[in-house]
Amino acid sequence: MQATIRRQTMEPSATLLLYCQDRKGLVFVIARFLLQHGGNILHADQHQDAELGLFFIRIQWSLTGFDLDQQGFARVFAPLATGYGFTWRVFMEQKRPAVALFVSRYQHCLVDLLYRHQIGELPCELALIISNHEDALGLAKFYNVPFSHTPVNATDKAAAESEQVRLLKEHRVELIVLARYMQILSPDLVSRYPRRIINVHHSFLPAFVGAKPYHAAFARGVKLIGATSHYVTQVLDEGPIIEQDVTRISHRDRVEDLIAKGRDLERVVLSRAVRWHLEQRILCYGNKTVVFD
Amino acid sequence: MQATIRRQTMEPSATLLLYCQDRKGLVFVIARFLLQHGGNILHADQHQDAELGLFFIRIQWSLTGFDLDQQGFARVFAPLATGYGFTWRVFMEQKRPAVALFVSRYQHCLVDLLYRHQIGELPCELALIISNHEDALGLAKFYNVPFSHTPVNATDKAAAESEQVRLLKEHRVELIVLARYMQILSPDLVSRYPRRIINVHHSFLPAFVGAKPYHAAFARGVKLIGATSHYVTQVLDEGPIIEQDVTRISHRDRVEDLIAKGRDLERVVLSRAVRWHLEQRILCYGNKTVVFD
Amino acid sequence: MQATIRRQTMEPSATLLLYCQDRKGLVFVIARFLLQHGGNILHADQHQDAELGLFFIRIQWSLTGFDLDQQGFARVFAPLATGYGFTWRVFMEQKRPAVALFVSRYQHCLVDLLYRHQIGELPCELALIISNHEDALGLAKFYNVPFSHTPVNATDKAAAESEQVRLLKEHRVELIVLARYMQILSPDLVSRYPRRIINVHHSFLPAFVGAKPYHAAFARGVKLIGATSHYVTQVLDEGPIIEQDVTRISHRDRVEDLIAKGRDLERVVLSRAVRWHLEQRILCYGNKTVVFD
Amino acid sequence: MQATIRRQTMEPSATLLLYCQDRKGLVFVIARFLLQHGGNILHADQHQDAELGLFFIRIQWSLTGFDLDQQGFARVFAPLATGYGFTWRVFMEQKRPAVALFVSRYQHCLVDLLYRHQIGELPCELALIISNHEDALGLAKFYNVPFSHTPVNATDKAAAESEQVRLLKEHRVELIVLARYMQILSPDLVSRYPRRIINVHHSFLPAFVGAKPYHAAFARGVKLIGATSHYVTQVLDEGPIIEQDVTRISHRDRVEDLIAKGRDLERVVLSRAVRWHLEQRILCYGNKTVVFD
Repeated sequence: MQATIRRQTMEPSATLLLYCQDRKGLVFVIARFLLQHGGNILHADQHQDAELGLFFIRIQWSLTGFDLDQQGFARVFAPLATGYGFTWRVFMEQKRPAVALFVSRYQHCLVDLLYRHQIGELPCELALIISNHEDALGLAKFYNVPFSHTPVNATDKAAAESEQVRLLKEHRVELIVLARYMQILSPDLVSRYPRRIINVHHSFLPAFVGAKPYHAAFARGVKLIGATSHYVTQVLDEGPIIEQDVTRISHRDRVEDLIAKGRDLERVVLSRAVRWHLEQRILCYGNKTVVFD
Repeated sequence: MQATIRRQTMEPSATLLLYCQDRKGLVFVIARFLLQHGGNILHADQHQDAELGLFFIRIQWSLTGFDLDQQGFARVFAPLATGYGFTWRVFMEQKRPAVALFVSRYQHCLVDLLYRHQIGELPCELALIISNHEDALGLAKFYNVPFSHTPVNATDKAAAESEQVRLLKEHRVELIVLARYMQILSPDLVSRYPRRIINVHHSFLPAFVGAKPYHAAFARGVKLIGATSHYVTQVLDEGPIIEQDVTRISHRDRVEDLIAKGRDLERVVLSRAVRWHLEQRILCYGNKTVVFD
Repeated sequence: MQATIRRQTMEPSATLLLYCQDRKGLVFVIARFLLQHGGNILHADQHQDAELGLFFIRIQWSLTGFDLDQQGFARVFAPLATGYGFTWRVFMEQKRPAVALFVSRYQHCLVDLLYRHQIGELPCELALIISNHEDALGLAKFYNVPFSHTPVNATDKAAAESEQVRLLKEHRVELIVLARYMQILSPDLVSRYPRRIINVHHSFLPAFVGAKPYHAAFARGVKLIGATSHYVTQVLDEGPIIEQDVTRISHRDRVEDLIAKGRDLERVVLSRAVRWHLEQRILCYGNKTVVFD
Repeated sequence: MQATIRRQTMEPSATLLLYCQDRKGLVFVIARFLLQHGGNILHADQHQDAELGLFFIRIQWSLTGFDLDQQGFARVFAPLATGYGFTWRVFMEQKRPAVALFVSRYQHCLVDLLYRHQIGELPCELALIISNHEDALGLAKFYNVPFSHTPVNATDKAAAESEQVRLLKEHRVELIVLARYMQILSPDLVSRYPRRIINVHHSFLPAFVGAKPYHAAFARGVKLIGATSHYVTQVLDEGPIIEQDVTRISHRDRVEDLIAKGRDLERVVLSRAVRWHLEQRILCYGNKTVVFD
């Protein structure tokens, strides 16, 4: 067995993500609340959007000596949240969310996520892999993750999707990761998981929206190619961007080389987004993200 | 005086840039020609676009012992070039091309190019600086470069441009560098200097074409911003890309911060394009560039 | 005149940098103190070194409505600081610190810093330029910065340095920037400005400590070269690192090319360090830095 | 099954790597030789080390219509090579070299190489995996690669190594890849595979030679960490560098985070080195590499 590596501090901790209209005393109010309940702040990061007048905070504290559990927190924090108009969520570490991985034929992101999960980089349960092909079955077995084949029939996409929805409910999935899943999700499915579906697009958005971005990049003669991970919304490739990265190409690189170099970008960009989501580092507002580091 | 630094090898050399339909024996034919005239190859780089069936070569040789001058080369090489259908140009080092720098109010690229020229990074003569404002006059004087103020009147842009054309002719300018020049050149001016006008656009093209790209990047919530240097063609921001670079931004960066970080990208990306052009490293074909390194 | 660009928020603000032994309630205590005096927190960033049990915070608040000036703050905050064992400093924006730039013959960093200062990237007064050569005199005049020539005689370095110390005192200099100053400062001078002398070393420290790092990098055949900005301590090239960056090289690059590519790294790495210092973003502890972003 | 992706051009080709003392006419002589035997040059890249007076070339040509096989080439090319003093090797594509992967407990590089091989990124046969632990057995089975467990006994390392040597001979291994193999190879084993053992070191060499480089990087407070792939020589971590890359870290990153970020560097840096070696892109001279792109 390999030793696993934990990014979080070793002691059990809780994380609060919150935003609201900015006003005086917000840090004080929140810090006081935590202190009153025995919480020692391990890490706090705050941000202010001066233009919109918004206040954002991510605050993480030790659960050792903290006198509230998740339900207790919700109850006791509610009056404060209402009074100040907080949009917030809290996450206590005991619970590892269930994640579903969607994949089609290209498996580089899947291979990457499965290995990262195995060595402890991704704090979640891999509830199941869903695919419109059977290629990934062997890999799923090797990593002991349930595999569901939901073939997509061009004339009846709805059937596959209703089966997918059933599976997601059955496994109480909280996050969907599209690891190079080449089907477009219906508006209905997207609306069931707001800010809880992460996709990787194989271009530096907003350049080269849509199909075959590496071919488009090749045709335009760009000198760098990119990849983008983002939350899925109703508009294709237009959701809030979580992470992007690029790599240099030259005239020597053909489309196949762009695709090969792109694979390395895609898996890094997607895995970071998944990890940050699971570590409660991402706040969405408008169509943008705040990613606390 | 500071010591200047020369990128080229110390001995005088010549550079041939050439492309044609690919066929057997091209390297042999060109190498034989150079050998017959006493040229010792210092550096050769060849590229083939398999899809289009094109052959590209950049070849640099020592002028020590070489028995042709620029005119002689043109005369003796012509039959070969015609026979094989070469598109080509040769550059012998004695001649340093005259360059005009166009600038508006932002001077970071101008400051950068002037200093690089002073220490020998850019093998050219700076013939003149042309601006629609007077801000850069002091800088021009400090670096001993002639300065021409050609104010652009919104109702009569043609007057400024005809004066600019006159100046370019008078100084026998061979390369125009738009160092954050905020006026759009007329189709007529562009057509006079094909593949000889280099612009810097302050985004990662093709993302954020047109005005205020940093504002657009901020609004879209991208995680990296970029800059692009390219040859100017009749279609705005659509010319062959020479160089691109990006830098990471975060939610903490406001539009002003994007602009500040972008300045560092712009000057690097523009100065590389100018240097590569002057070092005869760039071949254009279709709407793309081959940049030999 | 060019419009200047300010990184800080527009309203006057204050910044507190602080570290101490970690304990419960520190954020609360500090936030309460600021609230009691009418301070609206604009930005707060906190860090904890779990291994050493240390707590670090950078907190910035609006001076609009804040009821203490710098002296008042020092007086009122003192009991709290003593009680909790804070190591701290506060910076209120009205005062722009005096900076001295030291330079020898290579001027690329100097050119860069002068221009950045001119357009408002560096919130300080450039009190004077000190050089052991006269090369930079013209540049100093162009940017209206006093210039002092302190030639270094190999047999009597102390004379030059005592003149430098006199100048630094006379101009009440608070930060010394070694912009490719090729003389080693004496232990006495270094000890007068602890954590207030910033140097740029032209390698990726700790690789290639000492003289001629580009030659050493070339000899070793590395594929990337770097530059490092750091605070100067008594041990050469061993002070706390502030910023580093690298760029790719290839077998085509000769030592001269490494030097040329390195210039672009050096000016970026040094200017960031200077700006971060001036924006009160850097906390030193042990031989390391915390750089709040 | 996934479609595999080939970096090389589709038609069968041959590659010649060569260096010698520089003199006039070398490109001509080689191009003429290939032309005489019906070879159409697909790609040629030449380099000259002016200081050492050396000439390097990598030349790739189509085997369609070429009238020599590997043995024929060796016979016919020999007189030319002797006359000009070429150090050379030729590689004709029909033959895929046998590669052995050595691994200890960390499997991120192994996972990465196995997947890349599966999708066709690495033109070789994976002859076997050798490990001093049994952790990788499952992975080896999944990818159908023979696995040999050669436990290393601290008191008798020689026994394990003689078994390894036997296995390498039996499988006619031509390249050894140390994919985070944590044992030091004996001088004898190293001498059997000159320039044919590739290692990945988890630092930016020459910084942090030896054990626990991430801990050393953390202690020094660097702002970037790196990884290096290199050929193994008799001196630990001193062999010719093939590839390096770095990633940014901050004060928030603990040693564990450096290790995690480093994993992503290591696999990219190692897999590039292996691919370039297999694509015959690397020429060693002195203690440096020329990597033709």
